[in-house]
Amino acid sequence: MCGIVGFTGETQAAPILLDGLEKLEYRGYDSAGLAVYDGKKINVAKAVGHLEVLYNQTHGGSTLPGTCGIGHTRWATHGEPSVCNAHPHTNKDKTIAVVHNGIIENYLYYKKYLMKKGYEFVSDTDTEVIVHLLDYYYKGNPLETITTVLSRLEGSYALGILFADCPGEIFAARKDSPLIVGAAENAGFIASDVPAILKYTRTVYYLQNEEIAHLKGGEIHFYNIDGDEVQKEPRKIDWDIHAAEKEGYPHFMLKEMNEEPKAVSDTLSPRIKDGKIVIDELNMTDEQIRAVKKIFIVACGSAYHTGVTGKYVMEGLARIPVEVDLASEFRYRNPILEEGTLVIVISQSGETADSLAALREAKSRGIATLGIINVVGSSIAREADNVMYTWAGPEIAVATTKAYSTQLIALYLLSIHFAEVRGKISADQTAGMIEDLKQLPEQISMLLSHQTSIQKFANRYLAAEHVFFIGRGIDYAISLEGSLKLKEISYIHSEAYAAGELKHGTISLIEDGRLVVAVMTQPQLFKKTLSNVVEVKSRGAFVMAVTTVGNTEVEKVADYVIYIPETNPYFANSLAIIPLQLFGYYVSIGRGLDPDKPRNLAKSVTVE
Amino acid sequence: MCGIVGFTGETQAAPILLDGLEKLEYRGYDSAGLAVYDGKKINVAKAVGHLEVLYNQTHGGSTLPGTCGIGHTRWATHGEPSVCNAHPHTNKDKTIAVVHNGIIENYLYYKKYLMKKGYEFVSDTDTEVIVHLLDYYYKGNPLETITTVLSRLEGSYALGILFADCPGEIFAARKDSPLIVGAAENAGFIASDVPAILKYTRTVYYLQNEEIAHLKGGEIHFYNIDGDEVQKEPRKIDWDIHAAEKEGYPHFMLKEMNEEPKAVSDTLSPRIKDGKIVIDELNMTDEQIRAVKKIFIVACGSAYHTGVTGKYVMEGLARIPVEVDLASEFRYRNPILEEGTLVIVISQSGETADSLAALREAKSRGIATLGIINVVGSSIAREADNVMYTWAGPEIAVATTKAYSTQLIALYLLSIHFAEVRGKISADQTAGMIEDLKQLPEQISMLLSHQTSIQKFANRYLAAEHVFFIGRGIDYAISLEGSLKLKEISYIHSEAYAAGELKHGTISLIEDGRLVVAVMTQPQLFKKTLSNVVEVKSRGAFVMAVTTVGNTEVEKVADYVIYIPETNPYFANSLAIIPLQLFGYYVSIGRGLDPDKPRNLAKSVTVE
Repeated sequence: MCGIVGFTGETQAAPILLDGLEKLEYRGYDSAGLAVYDGKKINVAKAVGHLEVLYNQTHGGSTLPGTCGIGHTRWATHGEPSVCNAHPHTNKDKTIAVVHNGIIENYLYYKKYLMKKGYEFVSDTDTEVIVHLLDYYYKGNPLETITTVLSRLEGSYALGILFADCPGEIFAARKDSPLIVGAAENAGFIASDVPAILKYTRTVYYLQNEEIAHLKGGEIHFYNIDGDEVQKEPRKIDWDIHAAEKEGYPHFMLKEMNEEPKAVSDTLSPRIKDGKIVIDELNMTDEQIRAVKKIFIVACGSAYHTGVTGKYVMEGLARIPVEVDLASEFRYRNPILEEGTLVIVISQSGETADSLAALREAKSRGIATLGIINVVGSSIAREADNVMYTWAGPEIAVATTKAYSTQLIALYLLSIHFAEVRGKISADQTAGMIEDLKQLPEQISMLLSHQTSIQKFANRYLAAEHVFFIGRGIDYAISLEGSLKLKEISYIHSEAYAAGELKHGTISLIEDGRLVVAVMTQPQLFKKTLSNVVEVKSRGAFVMAVTTVGNTEVEKVADYVIYIPETNPYFANSLAIIPLQLFGYYVSIGRGLDPDKPRNLAKSVTVE
Repeated sequence: MCGIVGFTGETQAAPILLDGLEKLEYRGYDSAGLAVYDGKKINVAKAVGHLEVLYNQTHGGSTLPGTCGIGHTRWATHGEPSVCNAHPHTNKDKTIAVVHNGIIENYLYYKKYLMKKGYEFVSDTDTEVIVHLLDYYYKGNPLETITTVLSRLEGSYALGILFADCPGEIFAARKDSPLIVGAAENAGFIASDVPAILKYTRTVYYLQNEEIAHLKGGEIHFYNIDGDEVQKEPRKIDWDIHAAEKEGYPHFMLKEMNEEPKAVSDTLSPRIKDGKIVIDELNMTDEQIRAVKKIFIVACGSAYHTGVTGKYVMEGLARIPVEVDLASEFRYRNPILEEGTLVIVISQSGETADSLAALREAKSRGIATLGIINVVGSSIAREADNVMYTWAGPEIAVATTKAYSTQLIALYLLSIHFAEVRGKISADQTAGMIEDLKQLPEQISMLLSHQTSIQKFANRYLAAEHVFFIGRGIDYAISLEGSLKLKEISYIHSEAYAAGELKHGTISLIEDGRLVVAVMTQPQLFKKTLSNVVEVKSRGAFVMAVTTVGNTEVEKVADYVIYIPETNPYFANSLAIIPLQLFGYYVSIGRGLDPDKPRNLAKSVTVE
């Protein structure tokens, strides 16, 4: 996720901006840039790669003199990492500069609109549309211009804006992307996050959605989207810098779990337009989608588990046969790839070695490929014939949470889209599913709010040596991921089983007090799994059940029940996984481990 | 496997025969019968089901008076369980009666031959051909007739024969099926196994292959196939009845593992004729085989694991896409079953509830089905459009060993056959694979002979809490079964992983001294898995490797290496599984458990 810093005051801005950006490095980025007003004009410097490159290029900021400026570290979403796509973006005359974090969903509409008006676009970003819109509407009153432009934008944004007409002033605004304002003597700051400015001030204002800040020297004013001034109370930050990096969360994993509603929303909402699924970057014509005879979903680890879910959803909705395969197996087994096959490769980093090799194997055999990828411009994103991005933002914790959740969303969207194009579902069905999808972010937030009770339960199982997860159908896919989450950060030997298979061996391991997690979200399989729960209970197991609200019947047999809100059963994974991620997390910290850095594991597995 | 008993002496035969058959019940059976000479003619009684039925029908044997007779419990192979197919079989005049255990491979040839000569067949059995051949060649000298007939038979047999011309006499012979002769004062016995006669005598003779015994009152003579008399030494049995039931083995599981060479041979050799694969009972024309576009292999537990192997073999040889599915999942997930799909259901018992339901689901949707089944006449065998039998004989131990091995053979044969018909492999390739297949029984025997060293190794790991099995491709399929075998009878939490997936989570569980079993039989994957072995070694794991003879490189990294003989890599599972079955067995008994009856598990899972 991009990082934003802004400074206006009495000292040189650029070194402070570079310093602030460095503090935001933990957020992940692929390029960076600065814009500083030098008394006459706005100067911009941008560089791809490590912040050091920008630092050296600007001689520590000294080539950009001036006491008011904005800075940005970019995590690519629209457009690959490049100097051209890096922020700040400016209008043609360089009289307005903008840094942006978030996704503008209707940018294509305004891009076309502005191009007709003669505007030239130099980048692939959604952000550039903002700066040209500001230019288009600007008649001398920055605040009025900003409110006009904001009311036209759909999506999420945190913005820092300079106008050459307003020396020493910074404008800032946000909606669904974080932005804070810091106040010091004769100086003002904006930042994505507290650590960027903690060295300079502990007095901050939290901007609310659709609020605008105006910084001028030491003065700070706030406005709502109608341009009315609003009063805000400052807060004192008492975290240390270490906690501040994680936005007050003790671990990146917990921070990233709490980012899931936003990550899901960011991945979802730009693809829903006028009640239809629109996947802009997907390069497949309806003809091509109709010609697909078979899909391979190829991935590793958690991404593989989203594929297991994806098989159920794609087969169920679009009725296209799907084979899910581990990338490390697929690449070596000479798979049968007939004409009309589409190979979907899922990878957060886009650099997973086995997944990349699988992609190349498919391509070398002339098979169409599609990457579901979180890192724009990564190897798989570059090499796949089609890409669908998950907009989870950078993920730091080794155990994936928000990237997993966004991969699920991508697979749902793709399945519905394919089903629509192939005429397998009605417009009504699509509309119903879109309604359900739209509710997911809020439902996830609600589930995240139950963390205290899950922590209490987790604390009872810190000494567990063995845990079994069971489920059928999509509930089995959820079990696979729930089990892996627990296993990889708690080092407890956890294993997921298709519930119907228990009797063919594993049930011999069930004994008094053994924890069994039963996932039971699928209505037509509920009673089947319930009888498996009865079986393990009768052998002494302690059962934690995850089921849909209303299935109170389960309380008669299970010892601890977590309810998830109602949704379309195809999407249940998105909800049921939340308590299981929390469970894994709390068991890990309860055992005194660091969930962010489990032993032996790497975030991106770039070797075989 | 069928049970044989025979008695000649001074008391009534039928009650002794019924008593002996009861002692052989542990071998499994579906019908039973007696033939007793009453001084004038041979009388026969037969019944389907429990021995009690025959007992009641004959009033405890009293309706069959006489002091010389033979009895049989049948485990169906050729022809369903029925009174008509039950033994003893007689010639038309009822002057010759035969009981038989084994399979006559060339029975169809002689059936046609004899039918041309005017013989009428009343059963579907291979056995009936023997009694008609005896009739055909009989000129008054039973021994001469028997040697003539035996020299014409291909396959395996243990035989008990009565001639009405020879009152008080029993003839017996064997080849590759067990038969013993018991001696008491003025009485003689034959039996498949010691327990049948242990109540009456502890003096027994072990018939060797192609030896013939002639019992007349207390006199017993032995002959070779040329009719020359041979001298044999009796042996004294000092087992108790309990051990005797398992032919001296402490557990059925070990007994059944030791039966694997024969079970494999019985399943294999009748299907190899003149260097070609011939699957007599398979009801599919070449046209139908060529029309198959996709195969689902549906099964549970170990049978599912043979399916995972089968996918590699079928896809590799016949290039037909194969999807392997758990029966409990398949039946509920509305699978996409397009025209040209063949659903193969694998089940030892033919009664597995989920597998049967999956079969019915496929049939109800008009999809062709094929059962690979061990129990003739079981529900799946009856309901499937096509059946291919595994001739493993009855399996008593809950953890499957020999049935698993024969399911693999069935899948190999089917894959080669399909590949041949579809023109995917050359005659030379087929010939080479048949050569490799033919060597499997002997290679398995050789691996079984290493049990002492495996027991020693197993004894070092009795206290293990966690074991991981890793492999790639077919080695992964082997790992799945090796892991399940250990888990279900030792209650150690064992888990199999595709080796390439370790890094995506499970490797965080590897710590000092943790046992990792690496299966490395596939030449093209050897080096890949070897690097995974290095990875777990470097994290402290103790590694037991199973690899092909010659791969001595592995000794540099693994702590204990088991070599399997060279074979076609497609067939490696048949060899590599043997030491893993032995390992599971010895860990189980080392932990003081009963491997034959693991807690919570049933032999045939006839509920969901």
